[in-house]
Amino acid sequence: MYTQSDLKKLVNKAILNLSYNEEAEKLNDPVKYILSIGGKRLRPVLALMACNLFSDQIDEAIIPATGLEVFHNFTLVHDDIMDHAAVRRNLPTVHSKWNLNQAVLSGDVMAFIANECFLQTPARCLLKVFRVFNKAAIEVCVGQQLDIDFEKSVIISHEEYLRMIELKTAVLLAASAKIGSIIGGADDRDSELLYEFGRNLGLAFQIQDDLLDIYGDIKVFGKIPGGDIISNKKTFMLVTALEMASVEQAKILHEQLALKEFDPETKVKKIIEIYDHLNIRNISENLATDYINIAFCLLDKVSAVTERKTELVNIANSLIGRDN
Amino acid sequence: MYTQSDLKKLVNKAILNLSYNEEAEKLNDPVKYILSIGGKRLRPVLALMACNLFSDQIDEAIIPATGLEVFHNFTLVHDDIMDHAAVRRNLPTVHSKWNLNQAVLSGDVMAFIANECFLQTPARCLLKVFRVFNKAAIEVCVGQQLDIDFEKSVIISHEEYLRMIELKTAVLLAASAKIGSIIGGADDRDSELLYEFGRNLGLAFQIQDDLLDIYGDIKVFGKIPGGDIISNKKTFMLVTALEMASVEQAKILHEQLALKEFDPETKVKKIIEIYDHLNIRNISENLATDYINIAFCLLDKVSAVTERKTELVNIANSLIGRDN
Repeated sequence: MYTQSDLKKLVNKAILNLSYNEEAEKLNDPVKYILSIGGKRLRPVLALMACNLFSDQIDEAIIPATGLEVFHNFTLVHDDIMDHAAVRRNLPTVHSKWNLNQAVLSGDVMAFIANECFLQTPARCLLKVFRVFNKAAIEVCVGQQLDIDFEKSVIISHEEYLRMIELKTAVLLAASAKIGSIIGGADDRDSELLYEFGRNLGLAFQIQDDLLDIYGDIKVFGKIPGGDIISNKKTFMLVTALEMASVEQAKILHEQLALKEFDPETKVKKIIEIYDHLNIRNISENLATDYINIAFCLLDKVSAVTERKTELVNIANSLIGRDN
Repeated sequence: MYTQSDLKKLVNKAILNLSYNEEAEKLNDPVKYILSIGGKRLRPVLALMACNLFSDQIDEAIIPATGLEVFHNFTLVHDDIMDHAAVRRNLPTVHSKWNLNQAVLSGDVMAFIANECFLQTPARCLLKVFRVFNKAAIEVCVGQQLDIDFEKSVIISHEEYLRMIELKTAVLLAASAKIGSIIGGADDRDSELLYEFGRNLGLAFQIQDDLLDIYGDIKVFGKIPGGDIISNKKTFMLVTALEMASVEQAKILHEQLALKEFDPETKVKKIIEIYDHLNIRNISENLATDYINIAFCLLDKVSAVTERKTELVNIANSLIGRDN
């Protein structure tokens, strides 16, 4: 059985071996750059783990799994344009390092490089796998649209927020687990269970990520705490606080959100005070735990021997900040 | 046998029947808009004509052919961002009518809507068709990159220019004809001949399009003559003139290209004077004719009865401005 570390190495190797049309090398430089600045390779690793549940032959899954990573990075390049983000993983974003046009175009070609990867899925399951991927790809775009729409709304419900992160983040993790399982030979029931496992894992992960903005260890997380608060980013905590707030608390929250000029520390302090009164940290942590427990329950039902599931359990725990 | 007009109607109907994920309707509004403002539907019509060469059953080809149109419009939305174009077909471009972020994101989803269409290719040839499409899609991105790169170069050769338009325009027409023929049941030789037919047609078409900027009938073409000259756009005429120019002519051309403030009419007049001295119009028209003649020669070799080829001959002639 492959460990998370083994699989990450396999994925990184496959990324280095991707083939490019080299006729206009400027097109590929940003692609190679964004793919080289790494991260956890969560989506392909998840796919390969799901494959490895059912088969020791994971080779056939490596290229399609790499397609998931290429697609994910395509969305990062374009999302960074839309968010005016200058930095990602402590390095300049593509549109900052090059320019807007280059980020649009090099992002675009990544969508088709991802396709190339999926076209290398074994013929016996190519159509099934490609359909799962493509449905998720469209949903990720829908999620990004909802994210843009929500940034302009004063109030959104926590249900709306959860649906947005489900589309923007969770469905691709879900599709990754499902795709890996299909290539590994899972039947429809098991691959659907793995889809739901990935979906719940993704929801837990995103809520956890929102929490880390405030309660994360700066040394581990690498960001200044409260960045989301300073930028008025809609998070699970903020939308929940706005829903639960008393008239007085809502007034303070809206005042803080409306400030054009402010001392960042004061704003972060005032909003966290309200979160604390409303018990938002616990509510969020409990919801993340609920999702992760559902994920484990679904994984339990998958018809593979328990010891094969160890790596998926470990990665799920690490994603929500539990030590292995 | 279907006429061009029949096929265009079928394509327009298929475009209206495209299914969308409607959860974030703002995502799809620009998609429906750009797909509604029409044009010749050249790529799907070409695909369906190529299919109809070999089969009376063109139904199976309609959705994949529509995918070609969706992909083409995806490139238009993103190219218009890169070119800062405010108007297309006398209507505002997507990023002008909405905004940059919306144009990036709604463009993106079109790439996956195109995929959805190709996933509906008959199973017997899905992989083959998808590979032809995806290779062309990557090449179109490479062509756009070369176009961007060339805009920054003072001198490019006419060979470099032709290669750029081959990638940016001709390969998608080539892929369209090939894809249609594959779905129609053509063998490898015939589908390759149709690829080359489309490629040569595309080259002729683009050179013709460059010519129309100066020599087109404003009533038919709908643009002010010399727009490409005013904006310093690299065209086949300009790159050829720069290659052939005497020292004195080159000096005038470079002076005109370098002007920051100028009277448009004077600039157009001075550059056309040099084109006229160098016989650029004839050279360009002859090259377009050469390509179209090669295209017809290739079409002749396709093993389908001559009368079946009439519509392809007609559309090819109309593309280079010959009356049917």
